Amino acid sequence: MSAVKNLKSKLSHIVYLGHARAVLDWDQQTQMPPGAAEARAEQSAALEKVIHNLSTDRELGELIEQAGSELNGATIDNDDKAMLRVAKRNFDRAMKIPEALAVEEVRVTSLAHEVWVNARKNNDFKSFLPSLQKIVEIQQKKAECVGYEDHPYDALMDPFEPGMKSAEVDEIFGKLRPELVRLVREIKDSGVKVDDEIMKRSYPVETQKKVTDDLVRRIGYDFSHGRQDQAAHPFCTSFSSLDVRITTRFNEHHLPGSVFASMHETGHALYELGFPREWVGSVLAGGASLGFHESQSRMWENQVGRSREFIQYYFPTLQKAFPDALGDVNVEQFYRAANCVKPSLIRVEADEVTYALHIMLRYELEKGMIAGTVELAKLPEIWNAKMEEYLGIVPDSDANGVLQDVHWSAGILGYFPTYALGNLIAAQLWEKILVAIPDLYDQISRGEFTDLLNWLRKNVHAHGCKYFPGELIKKITGQPIDPMKHVAYLRKKFGEVYGLN
Amino acid sequence: MSAVKNLKSKLSHIVYLGHARAVLDWDQQTQMPPGAAEARAEQSAALEKVIHNLSTDRELGELIEQAGSELNGATIDNDDKAMLRVAKRNFDRAMKIPEALAVEEVRVTSLAHEVWVNARKNNDFKSFLPSLQKIVEIQQKKAECVGYEDHPYDALMDPFEPGMKSAEVDEIFGKLRPELVRLVREIKDSGVKVDDEIMKRSYPVETQKKVTDDLVRRIGYDFSHGRQDQAAHPFCTSFSSLDVRITTRFNEHHLPGSVFASMHETGHALYELGFPREWVGSVLAGGASLGFHESQSRMWENQVGRSREFIQYYFPTLQKAFPDALGDVNVEQFYRAANCVKPSLIRVEADEVTYALHIMLRYELEKGMIAGTVELAKLPEIWNAKMEEYLGIVPDSDANGVLQDVHWSAGILGYFPTYALGNLIAAQLWEKILVAIPDLYDQISRGEFTDLLNWLRKNVHAHGCKYFPGELIKKITGQPIDPMKHVAYLRKKFGEVYGLN
Repeated sequence: MSAVKNLKSKLSHIVYLGHARAVLDWDQQTQMPPGAAEARAEQSAALEKVIHNLSTDRELGELIEQAGSELNGATIDNDDKAMLRVAKRNFDRAMKIPEALAVEEVRVTSLAHEVWVNARKNNDFKSFLPSLQKIVEIQQKKAECVGYEDHPYDALMDPFEPGMKSAEVDEIFGKLRPELVRLVREIKDSGVKVDDEIMKRSYPVETQKKVTDDLVRRIGYDFSHGRQDQAAHPFCTSFSSLDVRITTRFNEHHLPGSVFASMHETGHALYELGFPREWVGSVLAGGASLGFHESQSRMWENQVGRSREFIQYYFPTLQKAFPDALGDVNVEQFYRAANCVKPSLIRVEADEVTYALHIMLRYELEKGMIAGTVELAKLPEIWNAKMEEYLGIVPDSDANGVLQDVHWSAGILGYFPTYALGNLIAAQLWEKILVAIPDLYDQISRGEFTDLLNWLRKNVHAHGCKYFPGELIKKITGQPIDPMKHVAYLRKKFGEVYGLN
Repeated sequence: MSAVKNLKSKLSHIVYLGHARAVLDWDQQTQMPPGAAEARAEQSAALEKVIHNLSTDRELGELIEQAGSELNGATIDNDDKAMLRVAKRNFDRAMKIPEALAVEEVRVTSLAHEVWVNARKNNDFKSFLPSLQKIVEIQQKKAECVGYEDHPYDALMDPFEPGMKSAEVDEIFGKLRPELVRLVREIKDSGVKVDDEIMKRSYPVETQKKVTDDLVRRIGYDFSHGRQDQAAHPFCTSFSSLDVRITTRFNEHHLPGSVFASMHETGHALYELGFPREWVGSVLAGGASLGFHESQSRMWENQVGRSREFIQYYFPTLQKAFPDALGDVNVEQFYRAANCVKPSLIRVEADEVTYALHIMLRYELEKGMIAGTVELAKLPEIWNAKMEEYLGIVPDSDANGVLQDVHWSAGILGYFPTYALGNLIAAQLWEKILVAIPDLYDQISRGEFTDLLNWLRKNVHAHGCKYFPGELIKKITGQPIDPMKHVAYLRKKFGEVYGLN
């Protein structure tokens, strides 16, 4: 057998075990009885150990070397060469992180989660500080082990956004920040009031369930290869492109919390469902990056879901499902309510305009934490000062400020920027799509999504993680990430909503 | 670390991976979208391969040897010694079966399933014959590899019923058969008609769901460590005693199909939930045998569920849930309908009296198939002749005769006898329990099951698979399996129903 073939087979084995691991997680978050957590932790750890051992197996390293010789001269357009690049990146990274450090990270973060939960509950940042200090130290060590050229943050961001450097993020965010701050101010100063009270009326949960199942089917989610369940936090998980599952959540008095969350997760799912079928079991069957993944979810949630045309199409269905809440509402009122811009404290509730500002704040803090230039004890002050600078509001508590996100307690640093990059990529792709499908908005107003989905399949999904995100965005749009596309999209949409022009 | 401790840790790792494997199966049968089967097969196979490799690892064998020295002199009452016995049995068996044969078995049976499904659908035994021939050959080879003293069937039965030999089964069934045949005849000749038409009325499925959830909770099933779902075939599966799940099925016109199936699966589940908590992850946390497992399910289904006292307690609830179907029915009518004895073609629908006769027929055929004394092409004739001899009826088709069970197509031979042994063990335990809890039937008539469950916990569940089933039945009742206990139980109950005395 050729080394390439052998390597593929070994990697498939690991990929399938990864799917099994993901089934355990999905089950835990959607089906598992409450008393089973202790056993599930052991089951997941056992599988994790197997996957880790196989992923750092010397034989795998040798196969990667041999496959490299076999593929010498091939370009990244060759599937095998791309597969090899992914395999080599994963293997090299796994080998660079000492097992002791990996074990320490698991130990510290599993304890820190509980500490963070309590700290947030009690609005007590100080009680979380010692955990955070340990976590940051571990991440700093990890960055040193993995290595980097310019900034240690690059080493942490790399698995989430392959090839992206913080210097590039700095440049992108540097252009974006003043534009968003200005737009937020203009909206505030416009004097136009957009009322989202409609969204907080009573929407019976049982009906929300039926509505969201129907909704995700309408936009192309395939229930023969997926299902939608309820979970504490909406997510999408994939056990190959034959089985991609989404979750949503229901709050009687917050309709967007299920409707737009379901569209968001469907965007992720359509990406995973769209990888070539012959890649089932291949390492190439993954998103190009978290940023690209988020571009798909945000596009279906915002560019599609919160567009006037989609709401024209879909509002009658909602009105029929919720006659008490929506009987006296018209399409335009609902459209405006779905696009209310209001600086707020909590990232996950932020509107399209302010969202990236929440991200930039976190990115700047994280970079400083990893570089050692931000004193951790002072995080609450810095957080609040930046909130005032970017959004014009100051958190009433650390619970609604620096303690709001789960990421740091889980040892995840380097991840936040991908959320904002997703918005930027979505806008950049959308501009391209509107050229390719000139009547797209008309199609959307008629509930037709096939052309859009086909375009995404062909131009984005079909490539899986064959290309780095930077390569892929250039391949599709001819240029690197350009934050001004997002700004233009926002200005056009919200300029109209708030009468800015 | 001592070899014993080291061995335990290695075995736990394998046990937890086995749980993960079981989660994949449960998900497949209850939650998985239909289009995911192909990927799930790969995921399960990948995990299976890991488990097989770990289970046949030379190091494991060495540890078992070393632990044997450390535990030299300990008796089987010692948990570690019992753990060692289980480990050694599993390891020795796994090592004796050549990988090529195991792979061949998986290949042949996975193809045979489809062939069997079609053969049954088309009532075409001949089309299944070539597959069956291959399967029987493989099982014969397996028996030779594993080794046996008296009969090759022993080698196949051993993993299901540790330590049990076909000579013992012959003796037990030899006593039981004429007694059951006689009882069936007496019931037929009694002229008493028991009508189960009641059970076939309209029972709305949604209500059946609610009723069975409530029912299993009443008899002690703990939803904080389990859940009940719908599946094509009722089953119970365990991912440690912290997470034991059951399924049932619903047919609008067959109430016992959900109600008694749920009690049956709850019996299995209570067993798995009852292993000592410190055995989570231990190889000792399993049933003593499939026969013992079946004794628990049959006891809750029959000795409890189909008793007059239980029905006195529970019928009013059922009547309230199904006023249309049961409004004109009284307790006694329902009790009799639940205990209608009628020789029938299909094993899984058989009543308490005729059930074991279905099993004995299969057992005799299987023994002959493995020994090579039964010509496979003649199976339909032999089947039909035995049906006439034991039950006085002849199948109208092979689909309702020799082709009815899934077992052979899956390569499972040696399993059937455990179903009947379960009935016998249940009756034998029940006699003992009635001595220990003299007012048990009174308790049942009041819906009190705690004393019964506690007795089972202490005397059966707490031992897991520490003892062989033959050791355990002696430990609990002072004697080996005695089929006359089952006969006495049946004579008492059905003698009264059919006015035989």
